Amino acid sequence: MSLTLTPNATIGILGGGQLGRMLALAAARLGLKSRIYAPEADSPAFVVAAGHMLAAYEDEEALAQFAAQVDVITYEFENVPARTAAVLAKIAPVLPGEAALAASQDRLVEKDFMASLGIATAPYRQVDDVDTLKRALAEFGRPAILKTRRFGYDGKGQVLIGDDADPAAAFHALGGQPAILEGFVPFSKEISVVAARGVQGEFAAFDVCENIHRHHILQSTHVPARVDAITATKAVNMAKTIADALDYVGILAVELFLVEDPASETQLLVNEIAPRVHNSGHWTEGGAVTSQFEQHIRAIAGWPLGSTKRHGSAVTMQNLIGDDVENYLHILAEPGACLTLYGKQEARTGRKMGHVTRIIP
Amino acid sequence: MSLTLTPNATIGILGGGQLGRMLALAAARLGLKSRIYAPEADSPAFVVAAGHMLAAYEDEEALAQFAAQVDVITYEFENVPARTAAVLAKIAPVLPGEAALAASQDRLVEKDFMASLGIATAPYRQVDDVDTLKRALAEFGRPAILKTRRFGYDGKGQVLIGDDADPAAAFHALGGQPAILEGFVPFSKEISVVAARGVQGEFAAFDVCENIHRHHILQSTHVPARVDAITATKAVNMAKTIADALDYVGILAVELFLVEDPASETQLLVNEIAPRVHNSGHWTEGGAVTSQFEQHIRAIAGWPLGSTKRHGSAVTMQNLIGDDVENYLHILAEPGACLTLYGKQEARTGRKMGHVTRIIP
Repeated sequence: MSLTLTPNATIGILGGGQLGRMLALAAARLGLKSRIYAPEADSPAFVVAAGHMLAAYEDEEALAQFAAQVDVITYEFENVPARTAAVLAKIAPVLPGEAALAASQDRLVEKDFMASLGIATAPYRQVDDVDTLKRALAEFGRPAILKTRRFGYDGKGQVLIGDDADPAAAFHALGGQPAILEGFVPFSKEISVVAARGVQGEFAAFDVCENIHRHHILQSTHVPARVDAITATKAVNMAKTIADALDYVGILAVELFLVEDPASETQLLVNEIAPRVHNSGHWTEGGAVTSQFEQHIRAIAGWPLGSTKRHGSAVTMQNLIGDDVENYLHILAEPGACLTLYGKQEARTGRKMGHVTRIIP
Repeated sequence: MSLTLTPNATIGILGGGQLGRMLALAAARLGLKSRIYAPEADSPAFVVAAGHMLAAYEDEEALAQFAAQVDVITYEFENVPARTAAVLAKIAPVLPGEAALAASQDRLVEKDFMASLGIATAPYRQVDDVDTLKRALAEFGRPAILKTRRFGYDGKGQVLIGDDADPAAAFHALGGQPAILEGFVPFSKEISVVAARGVQGEFAAFDVCENIHRHHILQSTHVPARVDAITATKAVNMAKTIADALDYVGILAVELFLVEDPASETQLLVNEIAPRVHNSGHWTEGGAVTSQFEQHIRAIAGWPLGSTKRHGSAVTMQNLIGDDVENYLHILAEPGACLTLYGKQEARTGRKMGHVTRIIP
């Protein structure tokens, strides 16, 4: 691939949420224009972009028109329909490419792909009906986690099957969709690698992140993760292996479980990958020389990657979820706290409204 | 004043150049919307704002319509006509206020104001015609600098009167406008203070900047300035005195000359003030915890000021002027360099196209 944008080129972004918004802001810093494609009229990214297309992802006429207005297309979410990506890719490059979307949209494909690379994951079995679920449960024991193959995020599309749970009820609770069963992983930490791969195959990872979830939603990220240097290097190398295998361009996030057992070597299991900027990388805006958003834009523009050097001895990022955001004046008054708000009108429960980054000197 | 914006409020910005653009981007980071008012159709700030008004600053109907769409109004240039500010201020607060505009639009008023505060400037005399110019020249000697009272920037509207120059020719070269003559100042350094004052009178200065000009255009800024602590404190105190006297809200930039004479105490003379974000403060974007743009938005929103703490042991900012910008790929490849481009289409000679910030670890 030899795409290299000139300044004043236009980036097309699928998705108008906070990730699309922060990508558009980073593109603007670099002199680039953005156009947003999203089906929601109140998309927070619309108001910071040069233009937008309000249309469904299945509207092929709108897609073609959008693609003709931009020089490269990227996205803020991995569930871009394959047909959407194909229609766009006929007219303008879509980055990260098709392979990255395929590998991250379906949990079964994702885990098979990791296995093909020799990368460990939680044990898993394909579940197509109650019978296959029962067999997998017998194999893994309980508790185990049933997850839909597609469209899961923030804990949606998954259910824990405990000692007393009825497998059939669990399967139907998820709508009877194609699923996988994951064996329980007694992990001690959740970490992530946020890294970029450029069009020439160059690779740059930010410091490894340690993530705290509550109700399956990321609450906070702490950087650097409290892991030893060997584990950190292993995690970064896994991300590089994945990115290389996908001939990836852009920011890739890899979520991992750390299983620490005093009796044996520390184990790293990939939980999932996201072919996009990632919540656990938000600390890089203000907390590193180059933000993940700028790095993603640099990569898809065919430009050199920026420095991933961290500011301070450590950085923390705290999500503002739902009415957490009402605390904004206190956060603004906190010395050194760096507040980002997403411009969303309504602070619904569980909705990510903004985040705070704190740099520890 | 007790204005306090809520997130999702809208900031009105007069002027659509790079300063307006960077203010709009900073507002977006804080969840705020921006609307830009400018008479140029290709204003770089239009493409990052929620909306814009393309109209002349004298179009009172457009001004009233604009003011009704926003919660507070600010500006990227000090030459906002008094009538424009008055029309707007009837409908929405204009910050920094009228006093700041009056004190910075006219070099004579500006210098008289400094004198009233006991703040030193270059010696100056009012020049209304060739006769007053000749008398002032006889008093100050040569060389001396003749400057129009209004609308000077980047060296425009001024002429050096050397030994052989004809005073009448110099006066007419500036269009025979009301002017001032400034005595020559044998300064060794040009420094600036970029500081914010909040609605409650709180004050926060960034580290003092040392500025290098060429052909009257800022080339680069080096922070911290190479001045002793006493001089730096004096400079910041002068900025505070000025801001307090103007009951100022927002970022104020004060440009100073440093006259170092081994035989006597170091002298600080105010050259001029700018009631707005300032080119010598661009290093704060990426080089400090809070950028001058965010700080200005915080101040005019009635929000607490942010930390002015600098990253690294030093920070430099280099302007990209005219075709300097063609070097963008080399700058992007430079480890740790942080590039900002303004999205201007045409790289005319002398035009500010972007800047590079470098943090020295």
